[in-house]
Amino acid sequence: MTRSITLAALQASFTGDEDTNIARVADLVRDAAGQGADVILPPELFSGPYFCKTQEETHFARAREWQSHPAVTRLAPLAAELGVVIPVSIFERDGPHTYNSLVMLDADGTALGVYRKSHIPDGPGYQEKFYFRPGDTGFKVWATKKGRVGAGICWDQWFPEAARAMALMGADVLLYPTAIGAEPQDPSLDTAARWRRAMQGHAVSNVIPVCAANRVGDEDGQVFYGTSFICDQTGEIAAELGRTEEGVITACFDLDEIETERAAWGFFRDRRTDLYGRLL
Amino acid sequence: MTRSITLAALQASFTGDEDTNIARVADLVRDAAGQGADVILPPELFSGPYFCKTQEETHFARAREWQSHPAVTRLAPLAAELGVVIPVSIFERDGPHTYNSLVMLDADGTALGVYRKSHIPDGPGYQEKFYFRPGDTGFKVWATKKGRVGAGICWDQWFPEAARAMALMGADVLLYPTAIGAEPQDPSLDTAARWRRAMQGHAVSNVIPVCAANRVGDEDGQVFYGTSFICDQTGEIAAELGRTEEGVITACFDLDEIETERAAWGFFRDRRTDLYGRLL
Repeated sequence: MTRSITLAALQASFTGDEDTNIARVADLVRDAAGQGADVILPPELFSGPYFCKTQEETHFARAREWQSHPAVTRLAPLAAELGVVIPVSIFERDGPHTYNSLVMLDADGTALGVYRKSHIPDGPGYQEKFYFRPGDTGFKVWATKKGRVGAGICWDQWFPEAARAMALMGADVLLYPTAIGAEPQDPSLDTAARWRRAMQGHAVSNVIPVCAANRVGDEDGQVFYGTSFICDQTGEIAAELGRTEEGVITACFDLDEIETERAAWGFFRDRRTDLYGRLL
Repeated sequence: MTRSITLAALQASFTGDEDTNIARVADLVRDAAGQGADVILPPELFSGPYFCKTQEETHFARAREWQSHPAVTRLAPLAAELGVVIPVSIFERDGPHTYNSLVMLDADGTALGVYRKSHIPDGPGYQEKFYFRPGDTGFKVWATKKGRVGAGICWDQWFPEAARAMALMGADVLLYPTAIGAEPQDPSLDTAARWRRAMQGHAVSNVIPVCAANRVGDEDGQVFYGTSFICDQTGEIAAELGRTEEGVITACFDLDEIETERAAWGFFRDRRTDLYGRLL
């Protein structure tokens, strides 16, 4: 019997109403499970609009402890009912600290713990350093009932170090919930192609499938570009969505076959850790 | 006055005759210089056929000290005459040691030193571990008269650590001489797309142009797939060659503009070196 895994990415637009947003994700999770998905990835911070566009202190009220965040408490029973893994992206409060976090719900609804986004962006339209303390958990790979799942969050996806670290920790697949789109400082700047290329590169270099889920929609002039995708261990696109579509994509991978391919390629055999000191 | 650089990649087939091969590269270097190139990259080990297909002790006679290797001594005056930088890939002997090396010829013909390939592949058709000791120089970035040039060699191109290290050392551009093509153990396996994706990923993650030069031709049944390319700092292909074409491609980059873009993207601002220990 071979180990296989079916990944799903969800793509949707989100409103100012938390209940509506979580219900929308729940519906799409149900669709994805109906299509045979084992691991179902919603976009980043789907409980609300992407509030980091501006720096406003009122948004700190959105942060909740991860154990009692409504996105977690409402999706956990669904994960158990459907027998699927759901990485849930939330704005987390931990005492006086606030993080951009991900709670990994296993296929029996158990929360396996929290990952806190390591790389925090800051620039026009994406002023996350105002809201989020840089993560203190380190990179995480979760031994779920469906496979060993590594997950970064949005800006983490641009860093080869994060992908490599998760691969070294034994990840079978890499997931990246995302919120990315227009750059207000330059309306002509479209980062969609390079966004995808960075993650296709991680797939190739680590011989690992990669799944990225982005939001769509126009949030007060900030348009998110969707183009969620799943690529295989060679970086080849296996499934994708357009710039405005909402819905679900899935792709199935044979993890045993990929593990053999990873060994035969020899990247991990040939790493020169004696020469990598400069990276630190 | 802005700092700009024009990169060129050479693509050709090579024979068993060293003089012919070096003369062929010299002709293409002249073509590239005529097109305005500042830095001109020939493929890997162009002085001969790709001998690493099999393990034969007679091939060790191909190794020479880098200072007196005919590819170096013949191309150095050409670099000076044309005022161009030429990274020269050779089979190097240093006492009892043999390396897969690159000698960086500056635009006045001066040899700036040697880089020894850090990552040595080994597999059907590419049995380099039989011939080459893993490099002991560490990664290198050369302050040439035309810009700060980082160069890896072939298998190095699959490792994000090598690209990142060279970017951290201040490289303006990354170069990779290559010899890659058919996989004898599986005639259906075509690695050309992932080969390119890995390096496009390095371009994006480091906001840096990347140039790769490969050989073409059928060498006793081993067909090299060419597809040499130059991509910009977003991974977008700026120039490319086909699978059988021989010739020259060039692309010009504004290094000041790219340096500003690199800073504005914030990748180097946001690296979490405190979390990268696992990479070593």
